[in-house]
Amino acid sequence: MASPGSGFWSFGSEDGSGDPENPGTARAWCQVAQKFTGGIGNKLCALLYGDAEKPAESDGRPSGPSLGKAVWARDQEAPAVAPRGEVNYAVAEASYLLPACNGERPTLAFLQDVMDILLQYVVKSFDRSTKVIDFHYPNELLQEYNWELADQPQNLEEILTNCRTTLKYAIKTGHPRYFNQLSTGLDMVGLAADWLTSTANTNMFTYEIAPVFVLLEYVTLKKMREIIGWSGGSGDGIFSPGGAISNMYAMLIARFKAFPEVKEKGMAAVPRLIAFTSEHSHFSLKKGAAALGIGTDSVILIKCDERGKMIPSDLERRILEAKQKGFVPFLVSATAGTTVYGAFDPLLAIADICKKYNIWMHVDAAWGGGLLVSRKHKWKLSGVERANSVTWNPHKMMGVPLQCSALLVREEGLMQRCNQMHASYLFQQDKHYDLSYDTGDKALQCGRHVDVFKLWLMWRAKGTTGFEAQIDKCLELAEYLYNIIKNREGYEMVFDGKPQHTNVCFWYVPPSLRTLEDNEERMSRLSKVAPVIKARMMEYGTTMVSYQPLGDKVNFFRMVISNPAATHQDIDFLIEEIERLGQDL
Amino acid sequence: MASPGSGFWSFGSEDGSGDPENPGTARAWCQVAQKFTGGIGNKLCALLYGDAEKPAESDGRPSGPSLGKAVWARDQEAPAVAPRGEVNYAVAEASYLLPACNGERPTLAFLQDVMDILLQYVVKSFDRSTKVIDFHYPNELLQEYNWELADQPQNLEEILTNCRTTLKYAIKTGHPRYFNQLSTGLDMVGLAADWLTSTANTNMFTYEIAPVFVLLEYVTLKKMREIIGWSGGSGDGIFSPGGAISNMYAMLIARFKAFPEVKEKGMAAVPRLIAFTSEHSHFSLKKGAAALGIGTDSVILIKCDERGKMIPSDLERRILEAKQKGFVPFLVSATAGTTVYGAFDPLLAIADICKKYNIWMHVDAAWGGGLLVSRKHKWKLSGVERANSVTWNPHKMMGVPLQCSALLVREEGLMQRCNQMHASYLFQQDKHYDLSYDTGDKALQCGRHVDVFKLWLMWRAKGTTGFEAQIDKCLELAEYLYNIIKNREGYEMVFDGKPQHTNVCFWYVPPSLRTLEDNEERMSRLSKVAPVIKARMMEYGTTMVSYQPLGDKVNFFRMVISNPAATHQDIDFLIEEIERLGQDL
Repeated sequence: MASPGSGFWSFGSEDGSGDPENPGTARAWCQVAQKFTGGIGNKLCALLYGDAEKPAESDGRPSGPSLGKAVWARDQEAPAVAPRGEVNYAVAEASYLLPACNGERPTLAFLQDVMDILLQYVVKSFDRSTKVIDFHYPNELLQEYNWELADQPQNLEEILTNCRTTLKYAIKTGHPRYFNQLSTGLDMVGLAADWLTSTANTNMFTYEIAPVFVLLEYVTLKKMREIIGWSGGSGDGIFSPGGAISNMYAMLIARFKAFPEVKEKGMAAVPRLIAFTSEHSHFSLKKGAAALGIGTDSVILIKCDERGKMIPSDLERRILEAKQKGFVPFLVSATAGTTVYGAFDPLLAIADICKKYNIWMHVDAAWGGGLLVSRKHKWKLSGVERANSVTWNPHKMMGVPLQCSALLVREEGLMQRCNQMHASYLFQQDKHYDLSYDTGDKALQCGRHVDVFKLWLMWRAKGTTGFEAQIDKCLELAEYLYNIIKNREGYEMVFDGKPQHTNVCFWYVPPSLRTLEDNEERMSRLSKVAPVIKARMMEYGTTMVSYQPLGDKVNFFRMVISNPAATHQDIDFLIEEIERLGQDL
Repeated sequence: MASPGSGFWSFGSEDGSGDPENPGTARAWCQVAQKFTGGIGNKLCALLYGDAEKPAESDGRPSGPSLGKAVWARDQEAPAVAPRGEVNYAVAEASYLLPACNGERPTLAFLQDVMDILLQYVVKSFDRSTKVIDFHYPNELLQEYNWELADQPQNLEEILTNCRTTLKYAIKTGHPRYFNQLSTGLDMVGLAADWLTSTANTNMFTYEIAPVFVLLEYVTLKKMREIIGWSGGSGDGIFSPGGAISNMYAMLIARFKAFPEVKEKGMAAVPRLIAFTSEHSHFSLKKGAAALGIGTDSVILIKCDERGKMIPSDLERRILEAKQKGFVPFLVSATAGTTVYGAFDPLLAIADICKKYNIWMHVDAAWGGGLLVSRKHKWKLSGVERANSVTWNPHKMMGVPLQCSALLVREEGLMQRCNQMHASYLFQQDKHYDLSYDTGDKALQCGRHVDVFKLWLMWRAKGTTGFEAQIDKCLELAEYLYNIIKNREGYEMVFDGKPQHTNVCFWYVPPSLRTLEDNEERMSRLSKVAPVIKARMMEYGTTMVSYQPLGDKVNFFRMVISNPAATHQDIDFLIEEIERLGQDL
């Protein structure tokens, strides 16, 4: 491998000082200025040169160092400014960076150049004139670029190119017209916080190795429990790797609460356990049951009304049925914000039933939890305060970068008892600080990624009122969409009435289908419309919205809005785009 | 809430241009230059001012914008440079940032300022004259700063202060003298890649929403399987949220392979299953068994030799014992690199036993997997190619930022069959691209954090040979430490012989204990030595190394080296520091 020293410092003295009289100074400053986006660099250069010697604009090619940099290297001029222009990336390798001897300056230059690439991407993400996605089929993408891993290192120029290429083909999830997932948007404070989290590079295992983050998790979970309505914010909780795992935790803890012996003896030692959730609930409940050895057959799907809400009378009927068979109902998972319809189960009625039959009540509010911070919308979760556990994903409706999912548990200490293994070689009991802050043993994980900081910092930056404003705005936009399409020609709503969340579910019916009778052939043709429009959206890269079938309903669009960047004009655009792309079908 | 416009742009025209004749220009450039660390800023300023008007040095207080910036705001001077000096953070809020109208410039300024904070932290992390930790007890830390979440937003000045404060109290996990965990170090390319991952802000659910990352996961897992030795790199795998979850996956898949009906019917439908692992194995095996409804009693701990390696004859004996009781042995989890001793179980002998009794062989190489890329050390994992599944955490020995843990599975398709729930509303079957790239349904998670990019980019930047060099270096350092202390007065080795991994386990015996007889009282006093030294290390902040008891051995130090920044001098320092802090005990 190459070693530091040969051709690396391409000019000047190592301490970066130079001759103030050297005319290269303005040029060097200018090279730096060119790094700024939005044309600012050119203005600065004009300023520095008195407009006399305007440097060429960057051609924007994603091919490593700028021409200017290469010229420097040839000319052996002293750089007038900090590290960023100094490194000749074509000969520099990762081994030149910190902790290498003299690695500080190339490191600062390299990280700043990466940052420039990221900042350009951030700015582009919000620019409606850029594509949401530059779509390529998997095989195309595999062939267009060499992604392979080799024995020998690439140089830093190639590494920067890798970064640019990766972002070129990425989805701009912050784009105001990206509506594809429940998690969209790119929050600037959240992003900064995630960068800081990466830089701190620790995990949530113990207070010892993550003192601040452990405390921030404590503060943040308490705040979330207060908002749920548990007295004084008491209880327990954890940030877990996503809503599916949070739901699995709930099932695990509910089982342990009912039969603590299951921890040692396994499922063989307990009666057959039954969980209940609605037919519109998230598939992670069944996935969790499969993993936990409960089995998917023991997850009973309760009927929903036409709006996708669990029908409490059906829940009670199925509980009684299970009990009559000698099975033990141990968990009801109500959903606050279903994935497709955005429906809120009637939590109060469900809480009454859980109380009556002494069953653990879990609320999967992964998607709907954010509405708790909205004074206007939180009534939709009335009864959540009676739950034993709640899944709430700030990475969805609160716009926190991925991943950030919380499981909140009403009873303190239960998680710890459920999951702890007393590994004294990991959790020393004779340490010099209060061990209650060592949270590692209550988790299923050993090391656990720091997911709290971005939520905490965003909360500081927005206040609860800021989250409220952005959530209210998204709901208002959904209502705007609903109001436009509910009576518009060519649209059929999947369910009637104003959406409760930002989910708006509809079919777009192309002109050729509008006069057909409502029979199987029409259904069959209608089912093919959304996939084609979606494929065209991705190929044009103009917008993205999800579609799916559900029950007996053929493929329909599910519009969701969780990106505070979206505006009324973006909703208008979406409608026009669907019509443009679906007109001929 | 405040709205953009009032007092926000504190000076100048919105496009940032200014009068080139204005003497404020040099000063403004200089303010920018001051952002650079390592004294470069001052040199630049001297250059700009011809040394006549040297600006005051920054006082380094973690209290928001510099004095210079405040002066600008008062003087209403036009800024000569890009956004970074422009924003008066004391009146700006997060709502001024993108996607706000005109949010681009304040966003660039804010993110650049965050980046400066991070770059300073990065540089400090490698500076041996800074503390590894500025330790405070939990209650002190809670009281010293207000961490609470409020209804109203803080301004961006306060947000920057929050960032500085968080880092002030954080552990410098990249510090060359931080030896506390199996994951240490801060790789510059890995860090850059993690920043990019945050910026791309997507998850691994489908090719649709993570085209590049899904392909990179495919490429990287294949490479890892090739290195394990599975023919042509065939098989399956996933990046999971940590080694504990990877081990749980292995257990889950092994169970499904033996009894696929468990997915629907649960553990009630299958005979009693027994897993085997060594008494030195990681506690996650028991944790996984508890979660999966198998029960911790069904995890049999096999005896180890004095070096911490599983004894194959004891494994076979316990397998036969279980079978005689009518139980079904379904999993042997061998460890390649135990947590405390760094021991490698004899994989070939274990593979023979697994083959003989038709049991799934898992290798937990979370810690030791990295040695596979070292031509010098990979023999320690001989037999890993016969495993059915392997846990390998690049965030440990390969120095990839947290988290990055892979589970590799030899049989393709099994993970998918084990975990898939066929949720057609999430995994549409009529999409326009090759659906085999939609990996979401083989995971326990729904959304899954992008953990692959940092490993992939580091691999491109180092090549396999670069990883090899840094791993060989860490092992060489461990041997250096071992050679120094094995015969040094005041040290006793916990086990004899050269360490196989970088784990060096030893007692430091203070002078007052050296002449005592080897009895209970001495053991009791010795057990208190490491905790006191460790507490002192943290209070001084000079270094950190882990200690623990294990079996009948009282608290001893477990030194591990996974940080390529560590040098021989750091090892020397550790020894001196232990002696300095433990001398009087």
